[in-house]
Amino acid sequence: MPWHPSYRGRVLEPDYLFASRHLLPHFLHALCAHLTAVGRLPVAAGDGAQAEIGALHRALVALERAPLPAQEPDVPDAYFAIQRELEANLGPHTVSWLRIGLSRNDLDMTVYKMRARELLLATGEQLLALRRALLDKAAAHVDTVLIAQTHHQPGQPTTVAHYLAAVEALLARDTERLLGAYGRLNRCPLGAAALAGSSHPLDRELTASLLGFEGPVENTYDAVASSDWEAEVVSVSQSAALNLSRFVCDLLSWTAAGWFRLPDGLVQGSSIMPQKRNPVALEHARTRFSRALGAAQMVLYSSHNIPYADLNDFGPDVQGALQMQYVQLSGGVDLLLACLQGGDFDAGRLAAAAAVTDTTATELADELVRSAGMAFPDAHALVATLIVRLQETGRALAQASVSDVRALGGPEIAPEALASALDPAAFVRRRAGLGGPAPEAMVSQLAGSRQRVERDAGSLEGRKRELSGARDTLRAS
Amino acid sequence: MPWHPSYRGRVLEPDYLFASRHLLPHFLHALCAHLTAVGRLPVAAGDGAQAEIGALHRALVALERAPLPAQEPDVPDAYFAIQRELEANLGPHTVSWLRIGLSRNDLDMTVYKMRARELLLATGEQLLALRRALLDKAAAHVDTVLIAQTHHQPGQPTTVAHYLAAVEALLARDTERLLGAYGRLNRCPLGAAALAGSSHPLDRELTASLLGFEGPVENTYDAVASSDWEAEVVSVSQSAALNLSRFVCDLLSWTAAGWFRLPDGLVQGSSIMPQKRNPVALEHARTRFSRALGAAQMVLYSSHNIPYADLNDFGPDVQGALQMQYVQLSGGVDLLLACLQGGDFDAGRLAAAAAVTDTTATELADELVRSAGMAFPDAHALVATLIVRLQETGRALAQASVSDVRALGGPEIAPEALASALDPAAFVRRRAGLGGPAPEAMVSQLAGSRQRVERDAGSLEGRKRELSGARDTLRAS
Amino acid sequence: MPWHPSYRGRVLEPDYLFASRHLLPHFLHALCAHLTAVGRLPVAAGDGAQAEIGALHRALVALERAPLPAQEPDVPDAYFAIQRELEANLGPHTVSWLRIGLSRNDLDMTVYKMRARELLLATGEQLLALRRALLDKAAAHVDTVLIAQTHHQPGQPTTVAHYLAAVEALLARDTERLLGAYGRLNRCPLGAAALAGSSHPLDRELTASLLGFEGPVENTYDAVASSDWEAEVVSVSQSAALNLSRFVCDLLSWTAAGWFRLPDGLVQGSSIMPQKRNPVALEHARTRFSRALGAAQMVLYSSHNIPYADLNDFGPDVQGALQMQYVQLSGGVDLLLACLQGGDFDAGRLAAAAAVTDTTATELADELVRSAGMAFPDAHALVATLIVRLQETGRALAQASVSDVRALGGPEIAPEALASALDPAAFVRRRAGLGGPAPEAMVSQLAGSRQRVERDAGSLEGRKRELSGARDTLRAS
Amino acid sequence: MPWHPSYRGRVLEPDYLFASRHLLPHFLHALCAHLTAVGRLPVAAGDGAQAEIGALHRALVALERAPLPAQEPDVPDAYFAIQRELEANLGPHTVSWLRIGLSRNDLDMTVYKMRARELLLATGEQLLALRRALLDKAAAHVDTVLIAQTHHQPGQPTTVAHYLAAVEALLARDTERLLGAYGRLNRCPLGAAALAGSSHPLDRELTASLLGFEGPVENTYDAVASSDWEAEVVSVSQSAALNLSRFVCDLLSWTAAGWFRLPDGLVQGSSIMPQKRNPVALEHARTRFSRALGAAQMVLYSSHNIPYADLNDFGPDVQGALQMQYVQLSGGVDLLLACLQGGDFDAGRLAAAAAVTDTTATELADELVRSAGMAFPDAHALVATLIVRLQETGRALAQASVSDVRALGGPEIAPEALASALDPAAFVRRRAGLGGPAPEAMVSQLAGSRQRVERDAGSLEGRKRELSGARDTLRAS
Repeated sequence: MPWHPSYRGRVLEPDYLFASRHLLPHFLHALCAHLTAVGRLPVAAGDGAQAEIGALHRALVALERAPLPAQEPDVPDAYFAIQRELEANLGPHTVSWLRIGLSRNDLDMTVYKMRARELLLATGEQLLALRRALLDKAAAHVDTVLIAQTHHQPGQPTTVAHYLAAVEALLARDTERLLGAYGRLNRCPLGAAALAGSSHPLDRELTASLLGFEGPVENTYDAVASSDWEAEVVSVSQSAALNLSRFVCDLLSWTAAGWFRLPDGLVQGSSIMPQKRNPVALEHARTRFSRALGAAQMVLYSSHNIPYADLNDFGPDVQGALQMQYVQLSGGVDLLLACLQGGDFDAGRLAAAAAVTDTTATELADELVRSAGMAFPDAHALVATLIVRLQETGRALAQASVSDVRALGGPEIAPEALASALDPAAFVRRRAGLGGPAPEAMVSQLAGSRQRVERDAGSLEGRKRELSGARDTLRAS
Repeated sequence: MPWHPSYRGRVLEPDYLFASRHLLPHFLHALCAHLTAVGRLPVAAGDGAQAEIGALHRALVALERAPLPAQEPDVPDAYFAIQRELEANLGPHTVSWLRIGLSRNDLDMTVYKMRARELLLATGEQLLALRRALLDKAAAHVDTVLIAQTHHQPGQPTTVAHYLAAVEALLARDTERLLGAYGRLNRCPLGAAALAGSSHPLDRELTASLLGFEGPVENTYDAVASSDWEAEVVSVSQSAALNLSRFVCDLLSWTAAGWFRLPDGLVQGSSIMPQKRNPVALEHARTRFSRALGAAQMVLYSSHNIPYADLNDFGPDVQGALQMQYVQLSGGVDLLLACLQGGDFDAGRLAAAAAVTDTTATELADELVRSAGMAFPDAHALVATLIVRLQETGRALAQASVSDVRALGGPEIAPEALASALDPAAFVRRRAGLGGPAPEAMVSQLAGSRQRVERDAGSLEGRKRELSGARDTLRAS
Repeated sequence: MPWHPSYRGRVLEPDYLFASRHLLPHFLHALCAHLTAVGRLPVAAGDGAQAEIGALHRALVALERAPLPAQEPDVPDAYFAIQRELEANLGPHTVSWLRIGLSRNDLDMTVYKMRARELLLATGEQLLALRRALLDKAAAHVDTVLIAQTHHQPGQPTTVAHYLAAVEALLARDTERLLGAYGRLNRCPLGAAALAGSSHPLDRELTASLLGFEGPVENTYDAVASSDWEAEVVSVSQSAALNLSRFVCDLLSWTAAGWFRLPDGLVQGSSIMPQKRNPVALEHARTRFSRALGAAQMVLYSSHNIPYADLNDFGPDVQGALQMQYVQLSGGVDLLLACLQGGDFDAGRLAAAAAVTDTTATELADELVRSAGMAFPDAHALVATLIVRLQETGRALAQASVSDVRALGGPEIAPEALASALDPAAFVRRRAGLGGPAPEAMVSQLAGSRQRVERDAGSLEGRKRELSGARDTLRAS
Repeated sequence: MPWHPSYRGRVLEPDYLFASRHLLPHFLHALCAHLTAVGRLPVAAGDGAQAEIGALHRALVALERAPLPAQEPDVPDAYFAIQRELEANLGPHTVSWLRIGLSRNDLDMTVYKMRARELLLATGEQLLALRRALLDKAAAHVDTVLIAQTHHQPGQPTTVAHYLAAVEALLARDTERLLGAYGRLNRCPLGAAALAGSSHPLDRELTASLLGFEGPVENTYDAVASSDWEAEVVSVSQSAALNLSRFVCDLLSWTAAGWFRLPDGLVQGSSIMPQKRNPVALEHARTRFSRALGAAQMVLYSSHNIPYADLNDFGPDVQGALQMQYVQLSGGVDLLLACLQGGDFDAGRLAAAAAVTDTTATELADELVRSAGMAFPDAHALVATLIVRLQETGRALAQASVSDVRALGGPEIAPEALASALDPAAFVRRRAGLGGPAPEAMVSQLAGSRQRVERDAGSLEGRKRELSGARDTLRAS
């Protein structure tokens, strides 16, 4: 059929290229699995049929060893290219077994889901790597005091470990979302044919299992027409991208402050400003997260206000957008991982910065409540006044003395109690409750986080074993 | 403090109004729960303290009976308004118990999550209602043949029940996503204070449990700084909106074709074109889903490229966006529910339409394979030629005779076999495999779907019982 | 007609409320203009007709003085409410003149465009106010050196004036976009009727002119069916929001550094951390810009993949989204304006910060080229080494001496030349070319910017005069 | 410098590849233009300098003839690769002339804008081609009656020409937006150096003119830091994509109805359903428009909440997103153009469809007003009743007789007047006012549209001549 050049150039060629690169093994596996089910149909009971089907199975397995040939002018897509290769070897009659009860609709959707599983697993592994790096870095900074900013102002003392463990907890939930999305999409469309299923009694449980799916998508219309799993895949990545955009924001600001230092291979100089040490890896990570967020919209718009049974819109066209979002997100995570593994926090500068902020104000107020029995609002007001007075003489709160407190009509307080209340490290040590930054609490929190990472790693590993196990069974079938 | 008029008019006033309408009981409950934990602290062990705390608890419970007062000029927000009311009754000393180990950060975030639980539960119930309506309508149309469109063309015969059950399956996954999101956000930030927790040994498990949460958010930084749960809430609604945009698309096109008829209360006439019966309820549902998709972006942009510890951006400002998305999505679902419950499919018109399409072509090809042993590609080609020939004489495929088949060099085929192959209803009956539209298969599929709906209803009901149970305990504490 | 409660509650009631608040005068004006054209039709030539039309005109003008009545159960929308009020006074025969050649399609679209003009003008005036504030502040800081950050690192010296003038230039282009959008949408749909125009020879130029439009939208289908103007309105605001998100980002970081100080009425303290001075007005501005960006998506999704002639989707439903985006953007601009007018840059802190950065490195390299004839790459390399050496002894580049240069094998350079090359203020003074920050260049640049603001103010003023002039003519007609 | 593998693989390599493909000539031209300005500086006045600069100019021109070499391990980007090639030929001293007053900031931004001009011009030409195709098709269908749908219902008779001309008008405004965007971005950043300009008196008017810009961006900070032009570029394409999504929606529904027929090269069959003739080209166009809308978000997110002077985020990273949006939009337009040029409306089927709708109801009501003096509401009500009565006996409104009118108590009306009122073609002929579909009005409207297309073509042509003229001057300089 003479395709219009625009259709060929704008649709068929890029789609063929995409399928060659990313979908070929999935096509072959899905066809193998379908063929296995066809081989058990009554119509295929005869010896001749079984022989043909056996030959076809072997031919499909053999095709895995070579790339797809260059697209010929009359070949619209990868599926036809595969079919043509098979027919060249085995003749059309033998190959026609493949087409019993099979439609492009269920075949394509199965293949897309198989590809999406790969993308999710790869994303999941990247998130795991980042989570491990966060926990490693946290373990090295359980005692490193960090003045957390709130509202772009010095807020309260905590530790680098506390902050990084929070980011890990965020990504743990993203991993959980990813595993949820994987489970929901991991059901097989095969056997749904065009949308109403086949009149042949194909064993859909069998094909699902041969491809490593948890089972078939039950309703056959749902199997080919639903695109919710694509929206969920991009939402999961969108969530990770959004969360990481905030982490990058902090790293950039800490890099600017000299609190975090990137290694040489991740900064760039300026051709005109020799003193520059630009944290370009972080900036490029930031843009990748932004683009991952935008790429999600390509998928969402594509499934918007289209008929439920229209398959092109969220079919081949959308696979490129899923791929693009994956490339962006994984690029960002990779850069961030490099920054985290190669860079480090500067404990000295962090401590120096902590010494000049007034962030232990809360603790001083609490101490006045605890040891002097003041009502909290009175203590709060007294501390606020104290800070103002100290500022007038250029002193930080950490330099306050018992006489400063007394001068404002405050209660007598022991010098050690005052010093302890004003020491950021003591502030942190005192916060030893559930989820707080005190070093001993943090160590046990990190141990829990580490277990969570490994549990998630086990889940991902299990998913991968399912897939490789299914592939082995399939080849042997 | 004299707020700048712009800050007052643009921020404080609308936020106060919002809190009055949507957040007040959550504030009071969260304060009650916190107070209960404060009452068990060592600093509150004395009788005087216990008496004050008891009085404060009763005052908080009493405040639930009245709305928030109008905002006074020096009151920035709902929390201060509550505090002022309490102080007017009990004096500042008594009220200051509340502030031990409490920050606006953990209090606000707790309150927002409590509100989000309500929104999710309400959305979940709407989805359930729609799913039930889909299954009810499906049950009434198990035998109603529908020519499913693919690529905007008549595709294959199936049934109205099969289609509606597929839509229900889609929404079942959205319900599952919603329950997943609920579970993930249902952990309590209280006790995290500003972000580092408190130096007082507050029982965070207790406060979480008193507010119906599954437990505390462990890491206290995570507790106040993470906005991932908001992104997940809008993603869940985004998914439902996207899926429903496709359902509406079909309903509109079937309404145009006369296959689906809306009741009078949901159509509008035209002032200038008296014959119009505009399916306005469906059109307005469509826009509401579009706006729900856009509203998600308000939330995502708000959490993008901001520091992790910045709480305003995804705090009060974003609550309005969550609310707005809820209003849009729930408006659309409500309209759709009305259309589905009040409208109906016209079996006669559907049958008439089915009779003139050539959508049983696949089946005829299959029949030629089954009964005459043709290779599928040959059968497929023969049927394609047959359709063209029939079209030349103005006939539909359903009118083909055995001699038409013979005339193209096709095999002999029994007239009944031909008739059966060409009958859309027979086509459907033959598709009795897993998830297919054959009436008996469909009946059992619907029974399964119905169970799934009721299981999800049970989950939602359980969540609601958790909340009301916690409220009862809290009041009694 | 008994509307379905969902349709009434979800669509008719909120739309009626919206029309009451925002659209009533536009409806009345559009009806007046249409009536004027009807009065010139041959069918209205008789004295009786003229008398009736005159009475109707007066009744319409009178309605402007009162709000729309509360919605009655059988009234779907504002247009019917107006018609009913007129009929109650004048009887249906007289009122029916209004309906000649008029459809809800052209009437509504006209009204929406009239409302959009108001929103654009209000946005335009806000942008003007902000631009003036930027130029005022710039004029006060022509000599205030600012170390511009690039890549989150100290980049080069420039001035506060230079930076603020750049932001103003950005907003000048947004104003230009806004005026372009205004011009493109300022064409009148009236007379297009349902979409094909009327068979009555209505004078469309007349109605357009009476409503202050530049002329009619020519093609009548285009007049009622096109929603591109809505997408353009939200794109213009999207551009401003995006640009301002970057400005806010800088202001927040300068506030954190103490370089910019907000007035008391625009910061908030912390209930638990008395030392906090949170730049909340800026943070809330940031979220408003984020929400304005998201609100744009509500409009875009609403017009996506819908038939060209479907008017509900981008009709009443979308007006709320336009309004919502306006509220968000204008809230953000208003807060920013307050920050800029009430806050100020701290020249002392800026100078202190400038003194310790190495940002004049470029200039030193240039000086070595200019006065010692070095090749630029050699000069660049020498300066880079110099900075490293100085850092090893804890000195900033500004403290370099001629012997430091010599020690690295560099050329002899006069002490004054060195000092001048290393002085940030001298750096700035030397950049006196087109668009550079040198004070005298800046003064003339600001004069040009000021003229541009006033020219744009004149354009907006002209647009407003057109509207008020048209209103006067209309009332008198 | 040993780049980190992640930075190399995720950033430097893809960026280098992108620059090789899309940016190389722009880099060379911009460097040539800058060099020309350097050549006129006082520091370059000597003969030796002039000779070196002349050689450098020739070397730059020569580089245009070959592609960029493969990226070497120590070469970060295209600019360094160019510099290295020049240095290999001419030595570093000669090449260092290039670096006087030049920064990557102004060079890159200039190059990006030059690329954006190309994308805009290419998009503009595609829109022109589509507009011409719309007008050509319209000219062939001035008399072809089309029943326009409103609210998914038959609305009113108009013509195919009227509809297509409306779509062209929509795209005419998009072209206008594109030209506006071009004008606004067509100002040159060169000479802004890092952001503060250079201390060398570079002639920025000259470089701007040599590169075909209308002039320099005045403020040098604005020149390198503003990304508004990128947001505008994607907004323009977003507008076109949104508008065209609506056009595609109609074409798809008309294809389904058999009113519009695609040529063979643009439809695809089904492997399982031989009767299918899927309008795949239109469906793929639809997705491309959806993806163009999503791609806009990649650009917008990238510029969101980043410092004004951060150049990476909207620099190299965003160029790929601009390119991607261009590919999507241009793919969709190309497919649509092929559909429009190769496909056609089926006048016979359109006429048959028109005959059975009741869409002339309005006209009948108008006729009763005109010829029988009824009040419009009475006429409207009578026609509505008449339609209901006719439907009860299975007749369309077109079959109404004068006695049907009389039977409802309606006025006497001449049979010819009735027939004429009910004839869709007569309905159309009567709508001969400004912008209406009557054939003679339409012919003159199309002539105007044609002129507008040619005027816009002239503008685009002028822009292209500016660029090629500048290139010629530059080579000769």
